[in-house]
This record gives sequence, C-alpha cells and structure tokens, in this order.
Amino acid sequence: MATDELLPEVRAMIAQRQERGIHGLADRLGPAEWADLVPRLDPAEVAVLFQWLPESELAELLEELDPVSAAGILRSLSRAVAADLLEAMDPDDATDVFEEFPKADAEQILTAMEPEEAAEIRELMAYPPDSAGGIMTPAFVAVPPDLRADQAVTSLRQVAEEAETLFYVYVIDPAERLLGVLSLHNLVLTRPETPVSQVMVRDPIRVRADADQETAARLLIDHNLLALPVVDEEDRLLGIITQDDVADILEEEATEDIERLGGSQPLDTPYRLANVALLVRRRLGWLLFLFVGGLLTSQVLTSFADRLDREAALLAFIPLIIGIGGNVGSQTVTTLVRAIGVGEVDLRDLSWVLAKEMAVGLVVGLVMGLAGLVRVGLQDGVRIGLVVGSTIVCVTIWAATVAAVLPLILRRLGVDPAVVSAPLITTLVDATGLLIYLTIAGLLLTQV
Amino acid sequence: MATDELLPEVRAMIAQRQERGIHGLADRLGPAEWADLVPRLDPAEVAVLFQWLPESELAELLEELDPVSAAGILRSLSRAVAADLLEAMDPDDATDVFEEFPKADAEQILTAMEPEEAAEIRELMAYPPDSAGGIMTPAFVAVPPDLRADQAVTSLRQVAEEAETLFYVYVIDPAERLLGVLSLHNLVLTRPETPVSQVMVRDPIRVRADADQETAARLLIDHNLLALPVVDEEDRLLGIITQDDVADILEEEATEDIERLGGSQPLDTPYRLANVALLVRRRLGWLLFLFVGGLLTSQVLTSFADRLDREAALLAFIPLIIGIGGNVGSQTVTTLVRAIGVGEVDLRDLSWVLAKEMAVGLVVGLVMGLAGLVRVGLQDGVRIGLVVGSTIVCVTIWAATVAAVLPLILRRLGVDPAVVSAPLITTLVDATGLLIYLTIAGLLLTQV
Repeated sequence: MATDELLPEVRAMIAQRQERGIHGLADRLGPAEWADLVPRLDPAEVAVLFQWLPESELAELLEELDPVSAAGILRSLSRAVAADLLEAMDPDDATDVFEEFPKADAEQILTAMEPEEAAEIRELMAYPPDSAGGIMTPAFVAVPPDLRADQAVTSLRQVAEEAETLFYVYVIDPAERLLGVLSLHNLVLTRPETPVSQVMVRDPIRVRADADQETAARLLIDHNLLALPVVDEEDRLLGIITQDDVADILEEEATEDIERLGGSQPLDTPYRLANVALLVRRRLGWLLFLFVGGLLTSQVLTSFADRLDREAALLAFIPLIIGIGGNVGSQTVTTLVRAIGVGEVDLRDLSWVLAKEMAVGLVVGLVMGLAGLVRVGLQDGVRIGLVVGSTIVCVTIWAATVAAVLPLILRRLGVDPAVVSAPLITTLVDATGLLIYLTIAGLLLTQV
Repeated sequence: MATDELLPEVRAMIAQRQERGIHGLADRLGPAEWADLVPRLDPAEVAVLFQWLPESELAELLEELDPVSAAGILRSLSRAVAADLLEAMDPDDATDVFEEFPKADAEQILTAMEPEEAAEIRELMAYPPDSAGGIMTPAFVAVPPDLRADQAVTSLRQVAEEAETLFYVYVIDPAERLLGVLSLHNLVLTRPETPVSQVMVRDPIRVRADADQETAARLLIDHNLLALPVVDEEDRLLGIITQDDVADILEEEATEDIERLGGSQPLDTPYRLANVALLVRRRLGWLLFLFVGGLLTSQVLTSFADRLDREAALLAFIPLIIGIGGNVGSQTVTTLVRAIGVGEVDLRDLSWVLAKEMAVGLVVGLVMGLAGLVRVGLQDGVRIGLVVGSTIVCVTIWAATVAAVLPLILRRLGVDPAVVSAPLITTLVDATGLLIYLTIAGLLLTQV
C-alpha cells in the first residue's frame, strides 16, 4: 500500500520540521490516506502534524479516523482547537467522537463550541450509538410541498456547503412530518415551474430513530438508497443516514459476529487500540464459563475409570474423538450463524436445516468413521477399531445436530445466535461425545 | 417482517388464480420484498407469478435475487422470455446470473438476446467474477473534455434510462482514456457555458479491471465515492462499480471469512441453496486433514502411557486442558484474523501483537490456572492440582502465541489468514498441549 512507503517520509518531515514538505504532501493525499497514516504515528508526531495541516483537511481526516483514535487526538489538543475541529466535522461523525470522551471533557468541549452546533450534538447524543438515531446526521435538505422545482434547486445551492448529501431533497409539512422525497436528478430533469409535490415520491421508505442501526443498513441496501430518512414516533423528519455509513455498519456487525463466534465478547473498539485489560475482560468470562463445562468431561472420565482401566487402548483416542466433534460443530455453527445473520434462515426453517445438517453429518461421519476404523483397527485390533469408528459416526451426527438447532432456538428466544460460539459447541460436544464414546465401548466390548 | 405475513397471502392468490390480486400487491411491494418472497415459493408458484408480473418489475426482482436463485428461475422459463428479462437487467447483474448457467444454456440464451446486449455480457464474462472487471457495469456516462456543462447535462438526460448511476459524468479523451470526473451537482451548480474540462476533478481514483473486488470496495468506502471507474492496463475507461455493489462485496467477504474461520471452505452460494453434497465437499477436506492432526494426540498419549498408568488422576483432566487451549486459541485467532481482514494489522505489527496476546494469555492463564489449582487440588490433592494449574498457565500462553503468530505469517506468505481456523488452532494446541501437560506432570510428580 502507498501509505506504507509514505510513513517513513512523513516521520522524517516531522522530525526535520519540514512544514512545507507536509503541505506538499497534503496536496497529494486525501483524508483516507491521512487516516491510514495517523494511527501509526507517535502522539508527539500527531501533535506537530495537526499544527501544520489546514483545519478543513483536519476535520475530514478526523471523520475518516475511528472515533476512539479521533477522540484520543482531540483530547491532546487545546479545548478551543478541539471545539473548532468538531464544529467543522459532520455532526454524526462528531457525535461518535463525543461518545468516546469522558463525560466531563465532553461537557467542557461542548461549552467551548458554537451554541447551535453544540445543541445538534447534544440532540444526537440522546440516541444509543448503535440505533438509527445514533448514526443519523441532521445535515439534510427539506422543503415545503408548494415550492417549485427551480426554487428547490436554488435552495439546494444555498445549503450545498452544509448538507452531507445533495442527492435527495425531502418534502415536509409545516409540522415537519415527512411527505415525500425528490432526487436531484428528478429535479434537474423536471420543468422549472412544477411544484415539488407533483414530482416527489410519496411516502418514502423511512426508519424510526429508535430502530437498530442494522435495520437501517438493510433498508439502504435492499432498496438501493443513497440516503434514508430517520423520523420520530410522530413521523417528524429528524435526520438522514447516508450510504457511506452502511459499509461501517456492516463491518462493525460482521466483526461482532466473528468475535462472538470465536468465543469472546465483542471488543467494540479497534484491535489496535484494545489494551490487555480490555482483551482480558472480553475473553475471561466465556473462558471461565467454558471451564466449568470442561470440568464435566473430567466427571465423565472419572465415572468411567474402571472401563478405561480394563481397555487402556481406548484412552489414546479420547482427544481425537472429542476433537472431531468440536470441528464438525464449529463448521456447522459458523455457517449457520452467518446464514441467520444475513437473514437467510430463521426458526421456521428448523426442519429442513436440521435434515440437511444431519444428512451432512451422516455422510461426513461415515467417511471419517471408516478412516478411524481402518487406522485404529490396524493398530489396536478390530474391536477397538469398531468402537472408535462407530463413535465417530455418532459424535459427528450429534455435533451437527446440536450446532444446527441451538443457534436457531436462541434466535427465537431473542438472543444473538452468535453467542453460540465454536468454543461453546466444542465444550458441549466434549462431554457428551465422551459419554457416547464410553457408552459405545461398554456395549461393543462387553458383548464380544 | 412484513414478508412473513405476505407469504400465505401470495400463495393463496396463486392457488386461486387471482391475477388481479397479485397486480394489486405489485403496486405496494418493491423488488426487495419480492426478492424476499420468491425464494420461499415452490417452482410452480414462481412460474405463475412470472406470467403475471410486468417485465420491468421482474427484471428488478431478478437483480435483487442472489444469482443462483435467479439463474434457476430463468432456466425454468422459455428461452425467449429469459433473454428478454436478461436484456432488461443491469448488465453487471445479468452477467452474475450467466455465470451460474451451464455453458450450453448460457450460449443459447446469449444467441436469443439482442446482439448489442449479448456482446456486453460476453465482455463482462471475460473477467473473473470476484475481480473489479467482473462486478463493473458498462452503463456509465462519458463525455469529451471540450463539451460545455449544459451540453453535459443534456447528454445525461438522454441516457437517463440506460445509465446505472447519474451522479458522475466521466471525461475521456479520444482514445477513451480517463481524464477526469464531474459530479452531477458540480454540473448543476456551474455556469452553463463552462467547458467540462475546467470543472472536472482531474485524475480521479480508479481501479484496474484485474484488481480484486475487495480492493475496489475499499476504495469506494475509503474515499466515500458513489461510483468507481474501472480501467484497463492502458487506462481506458471500461465501466464503473457503484456503491450498491459495496454492501454485497463486504457481505460476501465477511461470509467467506466466517466460514473459513469455522473450518470450512467458503460455500460461494447461499446456505439455503447449498445441497448436502456441496456442504460435504466444503467441509470434508479440512476434517480429514484435522483428523490426521488429531491422530498425533493419540501418539502422544500412547507414548506417555506408563506415566498415566502411575498417576491415573491425570487422565481425567486431559479434555479439560486441551479444551482450554482450544478456546483461548479460538478467541485469539478470530479477533486477529478479523483485524487483518479489515486492514488493521499486518506482519509489521507482529511484535506488539505478540506482546499483547502473550500478556493477555498470561493474565487469563493465571486466573484459570488458579481456578484449576483450587478445584483439582480440593478433589485430587495438591500435587495433581499443581500439575493441572501450572499446565493451564503454560497451555494458555502457548495457545495465544500460536494463534497470534500463525495468521500474520500466513498473510505474509500471501495465504488468506482465515485458513487458520479455530479448528486448526484447536487441533494444533491439542497435541502440543498434551505434551506440555505430560511433561509438566513428569517434572513435578517425580520430584516430589
């Protein structure tokens, strides 16, 4: 990547106080490149850079940075400078940064800001950060229904600086209720004297401010919208969510799912910025819970101690068998949690999902069981081979079944199915898989 | 969701041949809702629906469907009807559907299409489906540099029907090389007689047709673009990739990562449509590979058989200990693979990543080790408790280290780090964790 080669160059310029060199670079680089570079610099280097770059460039850079980094940088600047930069940012991005400030700092900076901008931020901060209200921006264009098309274009021109997107103009009634929407190209392609109420699309798709951000993202994706209006419970237009937020939401939600599936609580912060204490907090809870589950396996083993004494060869295959169960469970649960996450399956689909996964478990189990029978049979005799082989078949089907059913049931109960992590399924299948193994051993070996 | 309640209604209308009812519904529903409903209908019901809905609505519906489903439906229609519908679709979406047809079918339908549209599809099909060329659409607007702003708006108006997005106009030289870009609102806000070359943004961000689709998506996200121009090796403008493709790409890539992390090969098809044979093929390879790895654990156990004979209590904690190693490894690897996937860390970050993960492993290991010492100590005496507790500390640090280092090294070698799945780390840590356990047991128990 280009930024890799730029990093030493930027560092050298800062070290040698080449303010002009940085300005030259600023002409070539966009905010995305700066946002890539800045987190790799030391705080002292960032401080120098922020003195040299123009304010407008800095505001865009801060919008591109993740809010945790941006908050860290802004807190290292003087309160007045931080307030200026936050005013220059899009209000929705500025709000994300405010969420990362300690309460007292946030209050002091808000006091230093222009009252109008501060009021906007306070309003946005009232919504949970992962709700539609928490990610919307109030920078939209709204006009009354009796305006003419050419007047609407003029009003667009006047707010071109402030509005975050100019692709839609919303039409609202005197009580600010949403009536319709016009796209810029509708306006441009219409006869100038037409009233906007005649060309607008009525009852456009909208989202309530208290809806989940994922719901908003799905609406934007499914209907190919560039912006989605956000309304309150009385249908008053509060703000819009723009296309550029969708990618962030999708990435955030996928990251959460992946972290949960791996058996951690979501970090909610970039990995780079997560310190050891945070990582421990996010991981230890599940580990201790699974530890208690793992103790079950030692109970099972202890209670079957005399059977294992009589057939010492059985012992050697315990990790292999519970490992297979865990692997099959992990494959199944990740595929299924993702299918649930993207809205492909839900509890109504339980029967065919179960049938499919049990069939897959059977086929996979037969192949692996045969491999186990041959490999173990050659080494420890046909009797042990038969026990291991048939256990593999049963454990595989069992693991596939548990991993298929649990996430669907949790989803139904309103729990995020991604809490059924690979480690949880593995731990569940460890104890039950051992029970299956030692029961089959008891049946097959005593009959011979 | 609304579609849940609609499904029985739609079914009843089809069963009772209420064509008018379907038309009434079509006035209320958008293509996204139809695309949600259609995969839940039987093929015979879909066939009826397709006779009743107007062609324009059907084309949009097919664009919203996943390509596998769309291909299945189109193959069930007559060749002429299928050709008409494919002509009405956006060329990039139509190409995705063609990729799912058997070769012979694709050729026959292409022959039945208008030559111009067929040629466009053939051109797009030359690029791999996951490259920038494979997802671009040729439906863009390009003008010569000496055109006036008002003429550019006029040419926009003329192509309004065909172009997929009207938000950018590209400026190209006579050899079709990309010179610059204008946004629609630039054009509207400019004096009519200005030549476009004076207001265009020069050297816009572009992507090569052979680049990966993920690269293209990142460019669109990082630079907040609504469309990204795609060029060939001579910088000639071939097509554009639009914002609405970004969400699909991100979802596709996240799904692949999740499936790989769970220990399967990516399905590359919606779960709903993946049959048992496909699921088995995607899962069995890794399972057999891990099976061979799992056999190592039985080797380790066999070679330590006499030590286990002497200290039978050790046996009961084998699954617990390798389970803990697997859980810690799974947590670490998923978090890290995701951080690599979103571009947050790479091999240059190895040292701090390793330091962080080993520190987390140490803290987590000490807590869990203490729990193990107390729990096992109370039950089986302090000696066994000490062995289990200190093994947990070592295995935890070891698992964290392996899970932190492997994905970064694979990434460096050009291998997708997501192949280091949770099951792979678990299997690796199983055998080595056992070695650690039995070695520690040997050291601590013989010395007492």
